[in-house]
Amino acid sequence: MDTAAGVRAQRVVLFDEDDPLRLACGRELAPVEVAFETYGRLDADASNAVFVCHALTGDAHAIAPDGWWRTLVGPGLPVDTERFFVICPNLLTGCKGTTGPASVDPRTGRPYGLGFPPIAMRDLVAVHRRLCEHLGVRRLHAGIGGSLGGMQVLQWLLDFPDEVARAALVCVSGRLSEQNLALSAAARGAILADPGFNDGQYAVAGTRPEVGLATARRLAHVTYLAESGMERKFRRPAEPDQAPPADAREWLASRYPVEHYLDHQAKIFLARFDALTYLYLSRVMDGFDPFAAPGRVHPDLRALVLSFSSDWRFGPSHGVRIAEALRERGAGSVEWDVIETDAGHDAFLLDVLGYQERVAAFLAAP
Amino acid sequence: MDTAAGVRAQRVVLFDEDDPLRLACGRELAPVEVAFETYGRLDADASNAVFVCHALTGDAHAIAPDGWWRTLVGPGLPVDTERFFVICPNLLTGCKGTTGPASVDPRTGRPYGLGFPPIAMRDLVAVHRRLCEHLGVRRLHAGIGGSLGGMQVLQWLLDFPDEVARAALVCVSGRLSEQNLALSAAARGAILADPGFNDGQYAVAGTRPEVGLATARRLAHVTYLAESGMERKFRRPAEPDQAPPADAREWLASRYPVEHYLDHQAKIFLARFDALTYLYLSRVMDGFDPFAAPGRVHPDLRALVLSFSSDWRFGPSHGVRIAEALRERGAGSVEWDVIETDAGHDAFLLDVLGYQERVAAFLAAP
Repeated sequence: MDTAAGVRAQRVVLFDEDDPLRLACGRELAPVEVAFETYGRLDADASNAVFVCHALTGDAHAIAPDGWWRTLVGPGLPVDTERFFVICPNLLTGCKGTTGPASVDPRTGRPYGLGFPPIAMRDLVAVHRRLCEHLGVRRLHAGIGGSLGGMQVLQWLLDFPDEVARAALVCVSGRLSEQNLALSAAARGAILADPGFNDGQYAVAGTRPEVGLATARRLAHVTYLAESGMERKFRRPAEPDQAPPADAREWLASRYPVEHYLDHQAKIFLARFDALTYLYLSRVMDGFDPFAAPGRVHPDLRALVLSFSSDWRFGPSHGVRIAEALRERGAGSVEWDVIETDAGHDAFLLDVLGYQERVAAFLAAP
Repeated sequence: MDTAAGVRAQRVVLFDEDDPLRLACGRELAPVEVAFETYGRLDADASNAVFVCHALTGDAHAIAPDGWWRTLVGPGLPVDTERFFVICPNLLTGCKGTTGPASVDPRTGRPYGLGFPPIAMRDLVAVHRRLCEHLGVRRLHAGIGGSLGGMQVLQWLLDFPDEVARAALVCVSGRLSEQNLALSAAARGAILADPGFNDGQYAVAGTRPEVGLATARRLAHVTYLAESGMERKFRRPAEPDQAPPADAREWLASRYPVEHYLDHQAKIFLARFDALTYLYLSRVMDGFDPFAAPGRVHPDLRALVLSFSSDWRFGPSHGVRIAEALRERGAGSVEWDVIETDAGHDAFLLDVLGYQERVAAFLAAP
C-alpha cells in the first residue's frame, strides 16, 4: 500500500526452507515473513536510512498521526520522514504480521504455540539485517528504539559495528535488574498458569489466557508509569468517612480512577495482543546481556543514550551503565542524559520537554 | 494453652447475636470470635500492656523464637515479654482463627465468602478494643505495628486518644499512593478473575483460586523487597553467549534465582493463606484515609514513626507525612527516622542495624 504520505506497508518472506534463519538457540526457522513499513525515500547512495525498532507490544506502524511513535516519527518530526528513509518492521515473534508463535508451523499445519523456538536479541537483529539487505541498505544512518527497541539497536551495533553509524537508545537497559526479572516473571506466571493457556495451543483449543494476559498488562502498566505521575493523573478524592459500601462485591470491584484506568488498559490490550508473543518477547529481554562478552565498537560510532528521571523500569542507572560501557569499548561519541519527567518508562512514547529536541539534533547533526 | 515462656494462645467470642459488631459499612456482624496470644503478665495497675497488630498476612503468633515478629517480640527483645504484657490477636477478617470470610455464616450455614461484610480500619480497631476490655486493659502502654499493623495503631490513637500512650508505627502509610493502589488492584484482579474463585464460594465448590493467589503473592513480594537488596540476594550469572535453550517450555520455565525464590514464596503462601482474606485486608488498606477528617491527638501522645530507606511501598515519603500530621494535631512527642537498609518494606520483619535498638529505647523510656 502506497499512500500520499509516503507510507508503504508491506510483507516479505526473508527466510525460507532453502535458507532458514539460524537461531541463537541452535534451531532453524522457516519461513520468516516480516511485516514492515517504510516512510520517505532512500537517497541515491543509500545513506539516509533510519531503522526504528519497536518495544514489547509495538508493531510496524510507527508514523504520525496514528502510529505508536507519532511523537517522534513523521514529516518534520525528529525522525524526519522528509529527510530520512525510515524502516519499521514488526519484530520476529511479533503478532502483527511477522512470523511468530501464532503463525502456522509448516511441519504440523497448526500454530507453532510453544513449538516456536526460543529467541535471542541477536535473532531479532538477524531479521532486521536481512530486511535492510532486501531494501538495499548496507549501513544505517541511525538505529533508534525505546526499551526493548533500543536493546535491538544496542545488540546490532555491538555485533556489526560497520552497520550502525548512530544509535539513539531511549530508556534502554543493557542488563535487566533482578527486580525487572521478577516483575516479568510474575506477569508471565499469570499467563502460563491460566487454564485458558492450554500449553500454548489456545488458538486450536478455542480458549484464550485472558485472565493471565490482563493481569500481566495491569502489572506491567504500573511499572511503565511513575508514582508521581500516577498521583497527578489518578489522584482519588479524600475519604473522610472511611465507610465502605455494604456489599463486598461492590467494594472489591474497581472503584478508584487508577483501577478503572488499568481495567481499560487491560481490555484494549486483550483486543490487540497475543499472549505467546508477550511471553517470548519479555523472555528475550531477560536473557539480554550484551556486555557480558568482550568487544569493541566502531570508533566512529555516535551514541545518544537517554533516560527518564522517573523511569523505574530501565531508569538512569541503566542508561549510565550503557554509556560507560560504550565509551570503554571505544565509541567515537557517547552522549548520556536524563530527561526530567514524571511520566516514567512510558515517557519514550510521549511529548516530553527536551526529549524530541535532543533526538532531532542527534539525528540531524552532520 | 499455657507454656513455660508465658505464651497463652486463646480464642474468645467478643461479639454475639445480642451484641453484634456494628461495622463502618452499616452492617452488623456476629458472632465475632478472636484468636489471640498474650505474653508476659499484666501488672497490678494494668499499665504495662503492649498491643501488637499484624500486617496483611500475619497471625496471632508474633513471639520469638518462631513467631512472625521474632526479631522484636520476646524475652529481652524490644517488645520485652519479661516487662510488658503483650497482646497479639489475629485480625478481624483473618484466616488464622479469627472470624473472617471463611467462617460459617450462621444465617446460611455456609462459609460467608463474599457475603462477609466489607471492613474498615476502625472495625479492626473495634475488635482490638473489645479484646483489651476482655483482658482488663483500658489504656495501652503502647501500640505497635508494621505496615497494615501500624495503620491499625494510627486509627486507634486518632479515634480514641485516651487509650494509646505510645505508638510505634513502622513502615506505615497514612494514605496509599495511587501506585500502591494500582499494585494491589492488579493482585486482587488476578484472584477475582481466577475461575477457581467461584464468586468467593470456592470452599463449597471444592476449588481454590490458586493461580490468582500465587500471582498476587509473587507480585506483592517484589514490592516488599528493594531493587538493591534483590540484586545482592539473587544476582544471576553473566550470560555472555545469550543462547537460550532449544525448547521453549524449558526457556519460559523459572530459570533464574529470583524466579525460583518467587515460586517458593507463592507455594508456601498457598499452603497457609486464604484468598478472601487477602482480598479484604488489601482493600481495607486502600480505603485508609484517617487524616482526611479533622481532629486532635492526645497532648501526651508519644509517637515513633520509622521508615526504611529502600522501602518503595510505604517508604520515607509516607512516614514523614504521618509524623507531620501527628505534630500538627498536637502530639506531645513525635520522632520520625529513616533506617538505612536495602531490605525494602520487609525490613520491618528483619534484624536491621538501628531498628530494634530504636524501638527498644522508645518502649522502655519512662
